[in-house]
Amino acid sequence: MAAVTYELIHKDAATGARAGILRTPHGNFLTPLFMPVGTQATVKTLSPHEVQNLGAGMILGNTYHLFLRPGAELIQKAGGLHKFMNWTRGILTDSGGFQVFSLSDMRKITEDGVTFRSHIDGSQKFLSPEVSIATQAALGSDIAMAFDECIPYPADYDYAKASTERTHRWALRSLQAASNPRQGIFGIVQGGMYEDLRAESAKVIGAMDFAGCAVGGLSVGEPPELMYRMLEVSTKFLPENKARYLMGVGTPDHLIEGVLRGIDMFDCVFPTRVARNGMAMVSPHTAPSGRLVMKNSAFTEDFAPLEADCDCYACRNHFTRAYIRHLVRTDEIFGLRLLALHNLRYLQRFTAAMRKAILADKFSEFREDFFSAYKR
Amino acid sequence: MAAVTYELIHKDAATGARAGILRTPHGNFLTPLFMPVGTQATVKTLSPHEVQNLGAGMILGNTYHLFLRPGAELIQKAGGLHKFMNWTRGILTDSGGFQVFSLSDMRKITEDGVTFRSHIDGSQKFLSPEVSIATQAALGSDIAMAFDECIPYPADYDYAKASTERTHRWALRSLQAASNPRQGIFGIVQGGMYEDLRAESAKVIGAMDFAGCAVGGLSVGEPPELMYRMLEVSTKFLPENKARYLMGVGTPDHLIEGVLRGIDMFDCVFPTRVARNGMAMVSPHTAPSGRLVMKNSAFTEDFAPLEADCDCYACRNHFTRAYIRHLVRTDEIFGLRLLALHNLRYLQRFTAAMRKAILADKFSEFREDFFSAYKR
Repeated sequence: MAAVTYELIHKDAATGARAGILRTPHGNFLTPLFMPVGTQATVKTLSPHEVQNLGAGMILGNTYHLFLRPGAELIQKAGGLHKFMNWTRGILTDSGGFQVFSLSDMRKITEDGVTFRSHIDGSQKFLSPEVSIATQAALGSDIAMAFDECIPYPADYDYAKASTERTHRWALRSLQAASNPRQGIFGIVQGGMYEDLRAESAKVIGAMDFAGCAVGGLSVGEPPELMYRMLEVSTKFLPENKARYLMGVGTPDHLIEGVLRGIDMFDCVFPTRVARNGMAMVSPHTAPSGRLVMKNSAFTEDFAPLEADCDCYACRNHFTRAYIRHLVRTDEIFGLRLLALHNLRYLQRFTAAMRKAILADKFSEFREDFFSAYKR
Repeated sequence: MAAVTYELIHKDAATGARAGILRTPHGNFLTPLFMPVGTQATVKTLSPHEVQNLGAGMILGNTYHLFLRPGAELIQKAGGLHKFMNWTRGILTDSGGFQVFSLSDMRKITEDGVTFRSHIDGSQKFLSPEVSIATQAALGSDIAMAFDECIPYPADYDYAKASTERTHRWALRSLQAASNPRQGIFGIVQGGMYEDLRAESAKVIGAMDFAGCAVGGLSVGEPPELMYRMLEVSTKFLPENKARYLMGVGTPDHLIEGVLRGIDMFDCVFPTRVARNGMAMVSPHTAPSGRLVMKNSAFTEDFAPLEADCDCYACRNHFTRAYIRHLVRTDEIFGLRLLALHNLRYLQRFTAAMRKAILADKFSEFREDFFSAYKR
């Protein structure tokens, strides 16, 4: 039996949006699902019990960060990432590729892998499919990601083609390097912003013996319509019986548009990052932008919860908008915590609502209801 | 019936150290007790449920900070400080005097009160016994403190004498300004570092109709022996049937020496402040200094809890020294939270152990056990 499998439960009749179950060594999780990001073995500001209590099933750990600090060997000695950070549900680790390209200095790409300088101390490091997969095997995540290059935007056709072909060779090497039987490996579709490269990449990655397929290299600065188009031509050629994961996407509008195009899984720092900027994520029916900027003086004497129908720790326990505004204005960490808890719970409720709509064959109505109120 | 009363339950036979009960509108709390500091309507980094779960009965709120932001009127509109911050147990508010003298700029003291500039926006503000007591009445704390001047150290005799006499006149005005029947007011003994002024101040404050008596102006830079001596000559003249509160003191050695000299209550930012500096408070039997500096490389592969016999959230849930070191090194807020939870729980266990020793007439043995291991 494979460590990680996906079962398609139902497709929305009108749109084909998918509801399924992702089975992992640390539990079975309903899809569509959103993974909070725990970059450095902690979901920023929160305890693992809080993340569990808000309903998250899978979280994401960043191999690049953990590789540099504290190092995979230490985490392996601690009994693996689950035990090190005391998280009992699922963990997906990325390959480190994205951060090598976005965070490190002086990177040099060869067929073998990527040499780069650590953004922490400037020391020279090397990541390759083999090193990344061995690192993720040591971390002991439930799902490891193949090592890829995230193509910058914009990129010319020849660069995108050559990079995508190398990513395919790296994908095969990633699969061949697999050593942890309690870990599934997902491949990553690239192809830049070119329809033919995307389609070809989806076919190639979809044909390899991965436990699931991710779509990478999107939400990197391109217009939303272009992202949606690239997503469409990617998922079109992916196998039905494997989970599909859109990497680094986490705003509600993108979640809807991703699910509409056959995506099952998402991750993004957005809900925790905007929490640290004093922002609450809310339904567009509460605020058309889907966001409350808590420093706004409109909330000075607002003794209502962030959202009346929300069951998150903050809303359920009578922490008012006025109180949260006070905490944000005075730079109190508890304010960030309340907003992080609320925002992550909002996305858990949001993905659960999408699933419910799909099971009832009402995903189009769900989507229309959202966009009728939403003003970007 | 007075809003706040103290009942002396037992005095340690050999030392006279006190075990008692403090009764307040929000519950009865065993003494000796330590109050975590919730300066800006939050105990830094923690939720009120966490503070309650670690066993704290009373917390302290800072009138100076709340007076400036968000203002007592807003908190009153929210239903009082308890409701605003969602804390159901006891709250003691200080008078604002100490922060006016330590934080603000361009303060000018007259018989009427203190004019100062806000450390936040430079605006001119005024605090007096009447303004402070009215502010604390609006906050709705269980215990309000009389408005006083905290004499700087060192100060010459004439300044200390004049200031202490003014503090006595302000104490009377504070009592006369009382307006909240669900609030007890504590007076504050001053007197600088002069035995005769301390004794006189204790007699004057002790004779006024306060619900309890605080000793202020200590732990302001003087040597410990001088602090202990001043404490002795203060508590000697305080009434037995009222709670005695040593302000701004919170290291274990000072707690023992305070209780030895008849103190019942303490507050200090120490446990939460050192948590933010990556420090864990532990028994001197664990580390002679009573502190673990978590960044220390000795903890890199230390998979033990902070303290083996501790029942705090961090120690109970297998968050190891190695993990906490990783969080501190990577500036992750969850590391500060774990240390704050541990340190505050440490002091709750410590005060409970002192009480137990007093009730068994073994406080001297408790003290000797501590100091036999403790190396400052």
